[in-house]
Amino acid sequence: MSGVVVQHIERADPAVIDRLAACGVATVHEAQGRKGLLASYMRPIYSGARLAASAVTISAPPGDNWMVHVAIEQLQPGDIMVLAPTSPSEDGYFGDLLATSARARGCRGLVIEAGVRDVADLTAMQFPVWSKAIFAQGTVKETLGSINVPIVCAGMLVNPGDVIVADDDGVCVVRREEAEAVADKAEARVAAEEDKRQRLAAGELGLDIYKMRDKLAEKGLKYV
Amino acid sequence: MSGVVVQHIERADPAVIDRLAACGVATVHEAQGRKGLLASYMRPIYSGARLAASAVTISAPPGDNWMVHVAIEQLQPGDIMVLAPTSPSEDGYFGDLLATSARARGCRGLVIEAGVRDVADLTAMQFPVWSKAIFAQGTVKETLGSINVPIVCAGMLVNPGDVIVADDDGVCVVRREEAEAVADKAEARVAAEEDKRQRLAAGELGLDIYKMRDKLAEKGLKYV
Amino acid sequence: MSGVVVQHIERADPAVIDRLAACGVATVHEAQGRKGLLASYMRPIYSGARLAASAVTISAPPGDNWMVHVAIEQLQPGDIMVLAPTSPSEDGYFGDLLATSARARGCRGLVIEAGVRDVADLTAMQFPVWSKAIFAQGTVKETLGSINVPIVCAGMLVNPGDVIVADDDGVCVVRREEAEAVADKAEARVAAEEDKRQRLAAGELGLDIYKMRDKLAEKGLKYV
Amino acid sequence: MSGVVVQHIERADPAVIDRLAACGVATVHEAQGRKGLLASYMRPIYSGARLAASAVTISAPPGDNWMVHVAIEQLQPGDIMVLAPTSPSEDGYFGDLLATSARARGCRGLVIEAGVRDVADLTAMQFPVWSKAIFAQGTVKETLGSINVPIVCAGMLVNPGDVIVADDDGVCVVRREEAEAVADKAEARVAAEEDKRQRLAAGELGLDIYKMRDKLAEKGLKYV
Amino acid sequence: MSGVVVQHIERADPAVIDRLAACGVATVHEAQGRKGLLASYMRPIYSGARLAASAVTISAPPGDNWMVHVAIEQLQPGDIMVLAPTSPSEDGYFGDLLATSARARGCRGLVIEAGVRDVADLTAMQFPVWSKAIFAQGTVKETLGSINVPIVCAGMLVNPGDVIVADDDGVCVVRREEAEAVADKAEARVAAEEDKRQRLAAGELGLDIYKMRDKLAEKGLKYV
Amino acid sequence: MSGVVVQHIERADPAVIDRLAACGVATVHEAQGRKGLLASYMRPIYSGARLAASAVTISAPPGDNWMVHVAIEQLQPGDIMVLAPTSPSEDGYFGDLLATSARARGCRGLVIEAGVRDVADLTAMQFPVWSKAIFAQGTVKETLGSINVPIVCAGMLVNPGDVIVADDDGVCVVRREEAEAVADKAEARVAAEEDKRQRLAAGELGLDIYKMRDKLAEKGLKYV
Repeated sequence: MSGVVVQHIERADPAVIDRLAACGVATVHEAQGRKGLLASYMRPIYSGARLAASAVTISAPPGDNWMVHVAIEQLQPGDIMVLAPTSPSEDGYFGDLLATSARARGCRGLVIEAGVRDVADLTAMQFPVWSKAIFAQGTVKETLGSINVPIVCAGMLVNPGDVIVADDDGVCVVRREEAEAVADKAEARVAAEEDKRQRLAAGELGLDIYKMRDKLAEKGLKYV
Repeated sequence: MSGVVVQHIERADPAVIDRLAACGVATVHEAQGRKGLLASYMRPIYSGARLAASAVTISAPPGDNWMVHVAIEQLQPGDIMVLAPTSPSEDGYFGDLLATSARARGCRGLVIEAGVRDVADLTAMQFPVWSKAIFAQGTVKETLGSINVPIVCAGMLVNPGDVIVADDDGVCVVRREEAEAVADKAEARVAAEEDKRQRLAAGELGLDIYKMRDKLAEKGLKYV
Repeated sequence: MSGVVVQHIERADPAVIDRLAACGVATVHEAQGRKGLLASYMRPIYSGARLAASAVTISAPPGDNWMVHVAIEQLQPGDIMVLAPTSPSEDGYFGDLLATSARARGCRGLVIEAGVRDVADLTAMQFPVWSKAIFAQGTVKETLGSINVPIVCAGMLVNPGDVIVADDDGVCVVRREEAEAVADKAEARVAAEEDKRQRLAAGELGLDIYKMRDKLAEKGLKYV
Repeated sequence: MSGVVVQHIERADPAVIDRLAACGVATVHEAQGRKGLLASYMRPIYSGARLAASAVTISAPPGDNWMVHVAIEQLQPGDIMVLAPTSPSEDGYFGDLLATSARARGCRGLVIEAGVRDVADLTAMQFPVWSKAIFAQGTVKETLGSINVPIVCAGMLVNPGDVIVADDDGVCVVRREEAEAVADKAEARVAAEEDKRQRLAAGELGLDIYKMRDKLAEKGLKYV
Repeated sequence: MSGVVVQHIERADPAVIDRLAACGVATVHEAQGRKGLLASYMRPIYSGARLAASAVTISAPPGDNWMVHVAIEQLQPGDIMVLAPTSPSEDGYFGDLLATSARARGCRGLVIEAGVRDVADLTAMQFPVWSKAIFAQGTVKETLGSINVPIVCAGMLVNPGDVIVADDDGVCVVRREEAEAVADKAEARVAAEEDKRQRLAAGELGLDIYKMRDKLAEKGLKYV
Repeated sequence: MSGVVVQHIERADPAVIDRLAACGVATVHEAQGRKGLLASYMRPIYSGARLAASAVTISAPPGDNWMVHVAIEQLQPGDIMVLAPTSPSEDGYFGDLLATSARARGCRGLVIEAGVRDVADLTAMQFPVWSKAIFAQGTVKETLGSINVPIVCAGMLVNPGDVIVADDDGVCVVRREEAEAVADKAEARVAAEEDKRQRLAAGELGLDIYKMRDKLAEKGLKYV
């Protein structure tokens, strides 16, 4: 079943991808109906990164990073690698040498449900990674996996070419074919939030802005 | 049992609260007899915040942040919100819009045994949050909870009006009625520590300063 | 079995220790055959520290930091304390006063499979700690442990006098008697990596540099 | 703050306690408004036990079971011990000797947010324990705690004299003063469930029995 | 996105499903190329159950079991319900009343990445459940989810109509369209294993049966 | 560093091993000064097994069970295999075929800080296993490890030939050279406990048997 490299995948429109990056994870997640979030244990190795990119997926054996080398050849500018091990692992599949190689292909970062190492160097390079662990444990190059097949990463299905949005809040996946519609909705939310932010900052209450008082009373809320 | 908003609560003297803030979590915790710490998984979303504030408590259903809106109306300047879900949840109950609203009421921060999102924005605002998770997962507004009732948050009982002390070490609760006595003891510890710090920095040993050698020998410690 | 302080231990050559520090955890770990890493839950309290040092080991009861005082007397310049509790604990064994005392003896840092507190102060002091938890919970001084006996810390055997290498990637232990040979190999790796980094940065692929294509084909990798 | 033994506590009516035992954890929890459950990591050491009993609470230092001996003297027939450590511990505070002693006082079991050992013997004795861990790690007898003070055990406040209901589903606490009212409601639920069980077993759907179809349609559920 | 009930789904041939049940999880998993396992935290509530069944999938909000009632109407004899919450939850979505109703429709069991309760009753009924937690926490009926849409449960994609194989080793999903081919391969493995079991029981070594000695020597294994 | 099979190891006297088995984990652990316990997450796959045996150690790569085959050839009657992966793994290294082979060599069981599968079959065979996980995930046979070298398993150093004692309480290691002395002490404890059990069963209090009242009063315990 493994041992396959899919070379030609569809990607979303780069302009749409950039629009999603500007909205950020929380807004995009809401805009697409509260779906698509990877598990909360996927954390950035440093604060402040925000991006969106097209997923090149990697299904890799536990403790074996051979397929990362294979994946890098498939990268196009604007891509992000998304790696899920076939069984749980926190080994350090990725470090500064692979990041150097990936960046040379225009890669924007890595999402990995496993470990990463050389994080001081990756931070200095500003190569963003969202991972389950930081762990220097080395890996082998013995067993095949697959590139650009659908994977489940941190509890979420990721297809090759899906759009990954990631920032300090975590990681969200947007289906390629829904990317434009989600970007539209996300931008609408951003605009709507701006108005609310100003009213809230001025001291108006959410209870009034969102007209919650009647529904709360109807449910039986009692002030004592 | 839920669906109650207690509107009038007692708060500690603001001057006492500020004195506790100056002492910090570790010292306050020691000063009150090594009690009051919330579980170690309650972590600040950014480093460097230190505060004390009066607790407005929120008991909320899992994945439902409706009560946060209700709580904000009850906030007074110098308060902090403390939220415990009625069953375990890491959903993102709170983000930058709610922080904007809470800040407009004079709120100093949030302690939440669940998730928080928009952490880049909250950091930029310097709105401090101590949480169990960072997770963008949205919440609903369907079910009632209660405001200003006693709750258990991260393993510790918190009453409305108790003083919350929080910094990079975590979160500690001080009973409102003990706050002044604890502040006295905490300040005494700070003063005593200053003298010891200087002696230790000069190379004197704790074994001698605290006169431990006899008790160690008596217990049977052997140097080989 | 406990209650022993071993006063005279062998240490590695300080020049060798410094050479290991320069190579960092991931490289040293690879250089010695992918062994020696402590568990990934051992994390630095702040980013950016990198060191190597000679281990003074502490076996301590849960929630009892008495032995840290005893250990400090045994410290020599260039040492690091490595503490493992005899049963799991996340209590805060160590804070800024003990750090002040340890630094006065020339101590470079602490590795502790338990909790640490006063992390804001420790960060201001730039006293590096790798720990399992940040927790202000106080400890007692009631029960003996041992100093400079072999311990298992975060899953790894650490002998007194072994070299500890630690940075943002975690913690690695190098056997004292292997330290020089490992430093030689680690420096050779650093040199070799520099060449590869330049080729990768120039866009050459790992598949070609490491001549992986034949072996991948032989294992059955299919491009579709 | 610690070092106190409260000798005289109020207990609920034994007949009420037995009525709660007959209803079981899930029903009692529902009957009192979905509150009172200890965390799900509190598991029975063997399957099939079901009981209710009056809580004798123990606040104990980590890794120190001295207070269990003190507590046993305070036990009356029909009591259960509930132990919370003052900081997290999974040490084995309790084994078959203490169980023998507790049973001689009429004790019905133990709820402990820490470890227990001799579980084969405890199973053979049919002495039920709900614990966070099974771990043989021994404890010391060095530091005081308190008996029959309010504690937080596995996330829930437990007062001395509260009723503990425990079975294969976990542990639930019922406030002493609410015990009779909760027993009434719980028994009413059991009676109501019996009718529903028969209708459901006969193939009638919950959608119809609970008249959910209209509300589902109103919320927008679509059948495709 | 949610609020959809797909009423007509394809199911695998019942005879094929029964053949997979007979082979068990470990063998089926191997037979389909080491894929399909749900995470190891999915454990049976009692030992000894072994089944295969056709998946009716449930995507449900956290702490809300309304959709289980909706799902039951969609069940056909030989089905199993597979529930994944839209954000992490360990609440008790399911107990003996729902099991009674599901069984009346011919349901074989439940796989749930959340909590279950009434486990003593479920065990007495021999209604098998594989869950992430046992927890009596009640749920609400407020928010819609979906039935028979693709879900990710415990890290694995499950489509409606896929075959679920479950036993004491955990849970494995087999794609509906691959079920027959996997059953063929699994049965072939069972047959092959029987011969090996006899040779191994007679004392022959795997090293010889599988002819491993040469490859081990070639890799450099040294006997000392 | 790996790739070594040590063929000749020292073992403890079989009669001493059997004496340790009769005492059980908790007593042996106490008898040797409260040391030697593996982490509490090492649990038996079924209840009721109790054994002691001589350790044949296995250091294996993550997700690779090749070395188990190599280890089986080194087994002598009365041995137990103890496996630690070189980085964290919960893959199913071991099942009923390997158990059949191991049993044919007189092996008494397995301790594995990883996963095991075929647990229904292993239970039927009464082949005892203490593991970190039950997980059917298959493994490969690609990379060398070592046999009969010192390993750290679940936080504890295990040397080849050390005695493993295991029962429902978990797993304890006894150094080979200390085995006889520990057996003596453990049997003395068993004898002493028998007297205490009878006195406690008769209602005498530990407070009196162990003469604790004076020390408690001296520490300041107050009865109120």
